Amino acid sequence: MGSWPPAYPLATPDEINRTVDQLWSGGASGLCVETGPTWALTSMTPAAHTLRPGAIISGPTVFGLADCALWYALFATVGIEPMALTSELSIRFVRPARGTTLFARADIHHAGRRSVIGSVRCWMDDPHGNGPDVAVAQGTYVRPTTS
Amino acid sequence: MGSWPPAYPLATPDEINRTVDQLWSGGASGLCVETGPTWALTSMTPAAHTLRPGAIISGPTVFGLADCALWYALFATVGIEPMALTSELSIRFVRPARGTTLFARADIHHAGRRSVIGSVRCWMDDPHGNGPDVAVAQGTYVRPTTS
Amino acid sequence: MGSWPPAYPLATPDEINRTVDQLWSGGASGLCVETGPTWALTSMTPAAHTLRPGAIISGPTVFGLADCALWYALFATVGIEPMALTSELSIRFVRPARGTTLFARADIHHAGRRSVIGSVRCWMDDPHGNGPDVAVAQGTYVRPTTS
Amino acid sequence: MGSWPPAYPLATPDEINRTVDQLWSGGASGLCVETGPTWALTSMTPAAHTLRPGAIISGPTVFGLADCALWYALFATVGIEPMALTSELSIRFVRPARGTTLFARADIHHAGRRSVIGSVRCWMDDPHGNGPDVAVAQGTYVRPTTS
Repeated sequence: MGSWPPAYPLATPDEINRTVDQLWSGGASGLCVETGPTWALTSMTPAAHTLRPGAIISGPTVFGLADCALWYALFATVGIEPMALTSELSIRFVRPARGTTLFARADIHHAGRRSVIGSVRCWMDDPHGNGPDVAVAQGTYVRPTTS
Repeated sequence: MGSWPPAYPLATPDEINRTVDQLWSGGASGLCVETGPTWALTSMTPAAHTLRPGAIISGPTVFGLADCALWYALFATVGIEPMALTSELSIRFVRPARGTTLFARADIHHAGRRSVIGSVRCWMDDPHGNGPDVAVAQGTYVRPTTS
Repeated sequence: MGSWPPAYPLATPDEINRTVDQLWSGGASGLCVETGPTWALTSMTPAAHTLRPGAIISGPTVFGLADCALWYALFATVGIEPMALTSELSIRFVRPARGTTLFARADIHHAGRRSVIGSVRCWMDDPHGNGPDVAVAQGTYVRPTTS
Repeated sequence: MGSWPPAYPLATPDEINRTVDQLWSGGASGLCVETGPTWALTSMTPAAHTLRPGAIISGPTVFGLADCALWYALFATVGIEPMALTSELSIRFVRPARGTTLFARADIHHAGRRSVIGSVRCWMDDPHGNGPDVAVAQGTYVRPTTS
């Protein structure tokens, strides 16, 4: 690790989206829209089968995008490490996720040799993030050991 | 609420599966296999698109079944309340979820007028739950207000 | 609730500190230093008995200040409600809490009729919050029911 | 790590209490009452300054005993490792903690080379654990690296 925060993101949205497309034939949960030195912004347009009555995006789908945003923010902060794994994630559902596009932005608080910790906000439809939160989350990724 | 714990489950697997099928055209995350006075056992056979490289079930899919198990355990404990919503859930991923069938069992610790709290264990392939955990979770459902 | 975010904090540090002093003969975990429309900054100088070997502030003490910051941020956001109670809180410990003064800042994501959700950062010694985090947390307060 | 679960606890209450007394001049949060191969039972009689109005034990005090129970359960499961540190812990407060003696029992779900994961129940006054829960928690300890 160099100094904190890094001066610029260590991965661009293009690099992240390409990497994830190659890894997962099924496609990732979310598209990387933007990265900064310690954060990433992601979005997804939910598939019909993930909608609940009332056209509400299901909780596990929102969890999936929050988890994805944290993974991409880790990439932006320490470089692309596909083998980094979610260790734990806690999520609070704030209001029904109703709308067309779900956004999630993750900010990294700490990037250590063994783990990376961040917080996530999820909201609907506004790329600038001014909408009210539909969920917030916080969690830990474990980095692959280099021994 | 009557006495705690209730003497018998307030919903059978059949009642739960039928209710959820009617509610969600897309189908529920998991099938209810068994219920007790304060718990439910669920299972799912993951669809191909939820698998990650190495045939590992994705984290959000495991989260989805854990969440589902808690919902069904709430039904078993207080009766079927489809409008009960996940308020918060924290999950720890213990080991890669590799195998054919994912199981989750939720146990309710507390069922109050406003919220229900429970813990969940997830494991692979053994209906008797003797396999090692792939994930554990704990969380809160909020019950619909009756005013 | 009026519009979000409120235009100004609904409680000052003085009002908060006075209220808490009157409520708790034992004293609160933390002193309110500053409030904004949806946030509060708190600090504490740990007592000797809360220190672990190596002069590290104990985890439960850090948890206590994080919890306190969230309570004060709720006061700043919806007005002083001493009967608001922590419903759940998850905390990640980032690095040893070594230093003289522990700070915690809580930001509210959502303030509803029944619950208030926020995130907290904890760090050492720098009132401006530029130090590295010693812990981060996220959680929910339940508001007293008015029926 | 040998086989799971271990056949007998790797630390007795006496060994645990003696170790913790030697480490912390300020005293530990809780007394170890009993250990099993993958669990520990702890208790504490709260000091007056930890009580809130209504003689309720404060949330951070309950958190402290839950954290302590998880530490002791780790000792019982993998042997005494004082340098194991709480990585993250999420707690749900179920009802006011009113009474004389607080108990917490932690059960380990997973003990790996790098981390140990467990769940905790907290209740009042009944050494046999039949009382209703005042709080439940779940979390992760990180083990000291041996390299």
